Amino acid sequence: MKSVPTRVLDVDAVAAIVADVGLETLYDLAIERLTTVLATETPSHVEMKERDGFTLTWPQLGLLEWMPAVRHGTTVSVKLVGYNPHNPTKFQLPTIMSTLYAFDYESGHLRTIMDGTFATAVRTGAASVVASRILAHSDSSVLGLVGCGVQAVTQLHALARAFPLAEVLVHDPLPHAEASFAARARFPSGVIRAAPLAEVERQADILCTMTSVMPGQGPVIDGTAMKPFAHINAVGSDMPGKTELPQSLLRDSVVCPDKTEQALAEGECQQLDLAEIGPPLPNLLQDPGRYASLKKVRTVYDSTGLALQDLAMVELFEELAGQARAGHDINLEASAGDPYDPYSFLPSDAVRFIPALRQV
Amino acid sequence: MKSVPTRVLDVDAVAAIVADVGLETLYDLAIERLTTVLATETPSHVEMKERDGFTLTWPQLGLLEWMPAVRHGTTVSVKLVGYNPHNPTKFQLPTIMSTLYAFDYESGHLRTIMDGTFATAVRTGAASVVASRILAHSDSSVLGLVGCGVQAVTQLHALARAFPLAEVLVHDPLPHAEASFAARARFPSGVIRAAPLAEVERQADILCTMTSVMPGQGPVIDGTAMKPFAHINAVGSDMPGKTELPQSLLRDSVVCPDKTEQALAEGECQQLDLAEIGPPLPNLLQDPGRYASLKKVRTVYDSTGLALQDLAMVELFEELAGQARAGHDINLEASAGDPYDPYSFLPSDAVRFIPALRQV
Repeated sequence: MKSVPTRVLDVDAVAAIVADVGLETLYDLAIERLTTVLATETPSHVEMKERDGFTLTWPQLGLLEWMPAVRHGTTVSVKLVGYNPHNPTKFQLPTIMSTLYAFDYESGHLRTIMDGTFATAVRTGAASVVASRILAHSDSSVLGLVGCGVQAVTQLHALARAFPLAEVLVHDPLPHAEASFAARARFPSGVIRAAPLAEVERQADILCTMTSVMPGQGPVIDGTAMKPFAHINAVGSDMPGKTELPQSLLRDSVVCPDKTEQALAEGECQQLDLAEIGPPLPNLLQDPGRYASLKKVRTVYDSTGLALQDLAMVELFEELAGQARAGHDINLEASAGDPYDPYSFLPSDAVRFIPALRQV
Repeated sequence: MKSVPTRVLDVDAVAAIVADVGLETLYDLAIERLTTVLATETPSHVEMKERDGFTLTWPQLGLLEWMPAVRHGTTVSVKLVGYNPHNPTKFQLPTIMSTLYAFDYESGHLRTIMDGTFATAVRTGAASVVASRILAHSDSSVLGLVGCGVQAVTQLHALARAFPLAEVLVHDPLPHAEASFAARARFPSGVIRAAPLAEVERQADILCTMTSVMPGQGPVIDGTAMKPFAHINAVGSDMPGKTELPQSLLRDSVVCPDKTEQALAEGECQQLDLAEIGPPLPNLLQDPGRYASLKKVRTVYDSTGLALQDLAMVELFEELAGQARAGHDINLEASAGDPYDPYSFLPSDAVRFIPALRQV
């Protein structure tokens, strides 16, 4: 028996998948899959473990985390993800880099390994759409973006699939990030405009925050002049001490986290008591009629990122790779031959083992 | 900028490394590295997180776990490991399959991905040597093996590097596993002999247990007729409910776990109260003089497997791969080009994004 191969969806394969399916359809599929996986979350169907990780403090702050999820009977997924805000300036690498792994449920065989950086950026945008469809006015036309990095691009492109955006106001304290955003967004000219923070806050029907503010240095917006029905996707808060919104704004809003325990530990909900937190996103999806009135009040989606969203993405990319015939195989598990022999994958001349029987 | 490549040590690369360095030297290096990493464990140097995982119950019992460790300033390692005792008969795959990942400490870049199945089998053997050197008589010459699968081969080969083995008595309730062991062990004829369980227990100076007994079905040995100074490496107990040794034997021995909390949850120490458990292996290594008298009493090494051992192994294999010029590179992280642009790795014709601005 040969080793059972592992499918690798590397950068070229992900590019081939995007070229095959198209970015627009990819966002639509991601929004659909994320909606479904959270609407069907039950311990017997899909579940996830708490995100955990190492905090790395030398020579500067970083995180390395693992995010496991399971669809019982089918797939275990794990995302391994780094958060290193110094990466763009120090290494010309993204702040958030990750890889995604899918295992066969019954054998534990590593079925697929793929880039997670792009899929995570897409799914984080798609997650804001899933929440915004329930919490924002459906005719929201002015989008505000605070922070103009990678995540701002995918927030915009995802939300553009679901809302009639006529104006996009952006703000970033880093001039080069703000100035380069329109080109990276690849939008028709005239729709995107850099604006002072106060104007962004005042005009936005939907506001997204996704900055690299350091723990303890928030908030990044003022929050006092926002529209009474505005909806905020709070995307950047995802580690202890890191928050982007003022506590007063949170207390004046219905705050819906993606996962309450995780948001209390890492999200905007760090600033709230449990009793001040609204229903989490899976509850909204499982009983949408009950929460229809939330469109009429100020709401915050506290997006910390869910392992179940990553499970949905790796399953989606596995399907799309099959359609696009993308990816290549590697034999990563030393499982060839006799399952009782640890050396059966070795050429016979490497197993000339003559034990060093010491003389008694 | 190109993506930063990830080094893949697949089955062929691991085989090339073994052929280059030789199995004997590989075991010697593993024993040395495992000794060092545990002897130097401090929160500022190396540390690990608790093993956690999913218990998979459909259609039969299995585990999928993650084992993270860090060497501060250098490397974060994660092992993703499945335990599926039905694998050999159902899928012709090993019971324990795993993959190992090494990340750059400062950027979170995935530096190396490698087979973990072979490295884990080697390190589990090496770990028994590290413990046995402190807890067993140095002139131990009769080795008993209960369970004749993959782990029995590597226990034997590791222990043969450190003890003057003159006789190896083996027992497995599966006739085909017992009968095929000598060939898989690649030992000179006459050293290995299948024997009834009672004889194995009575004769062994060092006994290793590594069976796939189901939770609640232990113990697998009787334990009443062992030598007063015998040392036992209890290797197989690694999940809730799964134990191989009788409680009475444990209570008549000094039981040294690799990690106390983990052994209480998953190892033989499940059968003991905290006060009945001896010093863990890192303590033994950090103050060997203090524990010299343990060679003279009956001892048990409760081996549940440590993420730090896996960290040491991936670091070792990275070095050996460099020497052997083994492995190949893949571009797994979509990090090419502009770190602020999620699409910079895509060919330009895949980024013909024209947002579907819905008509207001």
